[in-house]
Amino acid sequence: MIEQDERSLTAGKSALVLFSGGQDSTVCLAWALERFESVETIGFDYRQRHRIELECRIKVRSEIAAAFPDWAGKLGEDHLLDLGVLGEVSDTALTREQAIVQKESGLPSTFVPGRNLIFLSLAAAVAYRRGAGRLVAGMCETDFSGYPDCRRDTIDATQQALSLGLDTAMQIDTPLMYVDKAQTWAMADELGGERLAEIIREHTHTCYLGERDTMHEWGLGCGACPACELRAAGWRRYREGSAGA
Amino acid sequence: MIEQDERSLTAGKSALVLFSGGQDSTVCLAWALERFESVETIGFDYRQRHRIELECRIKVRSEIAAAFPDWAGKLGEDHLLDLGVLGEVSDTALTREQAIVQKESGLPSTFVPGRNLIFLSLAAAVAYRRGAGRLVAGMCETDFSGYPDCRRDTIDATQQALSLGLDTAMQIDTPLMYVDKAQTWAMADELGGERLAEIIREHTHTCYLGERDTMHEWGLGCGACPACELRAAGWRRYREGSAGA
Repeated sequence: MIEQDERSLTAGKSALVLFSGGQDSTVCLAWALERFESVETIGFDYRQRHRIELECRIKVRSEIAAAFPDWAGKLGEDHLLDLGVLGEVSDTALTREQAIVQKESGLPSTFVPGRNLIFLSLAAAVAYRRGAGRLVAGMCETDFSGYPDCRRDTIDATQQALSLGLDTAMQIDTPLMYVDKAQTWAMADELGGERLAEIIREHTHTCYLGERDTMHEWGLGCGACPACELRAAGWRRYREGSAGA
Repeated sequence: MIEQDERSLTAGKSALVLFSGGQDSTVCLAWALERFESVETIGFDYRQRHRIELECRIKVRSEIAAAFPDWAGKLGEDHLLDLGVLGEVSDTALTREQAIVQKESGLPSTFVPGRNLIFLSLAAAVAYRRGAGRLVAGMCETDFSGYPDCRRDTIDATQQALSLGLDTAMQIDTPLMYVDKAQTWAMADELGGERLAEIIREHTHTCYLGERDTMHEWGLGCGACPACELRAAGWRRYREGSAGA
């Protein structure tokens, strides 16, 4: 019989990483592999505009496993859940009032508010079944201040709700919460050196337009959309040695 | 332009009821129709063992609208979301340790822990888009003490997480939280008299076996499964006038 204490011990050493195949969640995956004994990944197919993201998830995992033998032994299963329901939610008609509220906030009409809470509650259910007591997720207050479900106080409350609802401690680690894009590159370097930075540049996806033909020094992408601009600016600041400034 | 205050005012008068077509959520629907100016319903198709539940949802709504003209004007849209992903979660392999934990807790191996948090976070996203500031749900500590996500402290934490994540107050009302099955019948009677009790008996679904052929005084069902037994016992205690004792 497995004692509760033994389970807790195991749970504290196992983590489930919310892994989209992008730069931020790749750094989160490396962060978890550096710390925990066993690391699994979870992703959501919510009919992303660019299916390339889902392919990047698989490629990045295999590149990491090939490049880092110490991590390869810890990297466990990948779980990809079909979250087409997110599209059903975003198809729900906005009321006139709500359409105005969203427009004034600069949010698209298809925005699903609080979607990180949906991701986290599904991830927590999978983590529970897999005996993992920690979720690792790339939410960040620095870049996405417009999304209230990325703030740490929201994550704290979610952690509390999940731990009560599962009747077991479910910690949510957000290693990028107060880190900007330049510092994220620095973290990647600390965790996995130049080889990890290379994997991020070559195999993760950021571009809103889904462009994968042009290689820049910071990675693949159109170079002009807001996501590419953010990534490129972070890279330049990191290279200029101004990370953390 | 709609002022934030005006939106809050509207939001406080609109509710979204988590409505499964069962006895408890039907009483919740009546409770909401009695209180709020506008009431919508949401349900989840998670490949229920008995599809009859989804048919009951439609039938109960139409019976209520036909029987209670005052409520009919308030009863708005129904939202049915495809939550097949719940089956994917319950197909995730249990670890050996976790299988033992679930078995000792008396939970089936397909159990999706914290599934109420998944329901509530999806419902909150829809409520937000529909301009409703309240969710109404039938969670109950009395009958389901084995499910930690039915407890009020879990709901309080979830309400906090959702309100922070949506950056707007999202209240979760649970009118049945401390009510037993006899008192639920009494509430139905108070809210909608004998006519509502009739609708519940004839059109809601409880039976685990999906039996709909045998009419008992408390409703349709096999009469022998745990769900039928609970419902029948509640009905008898209510009829004996011992409700609330």
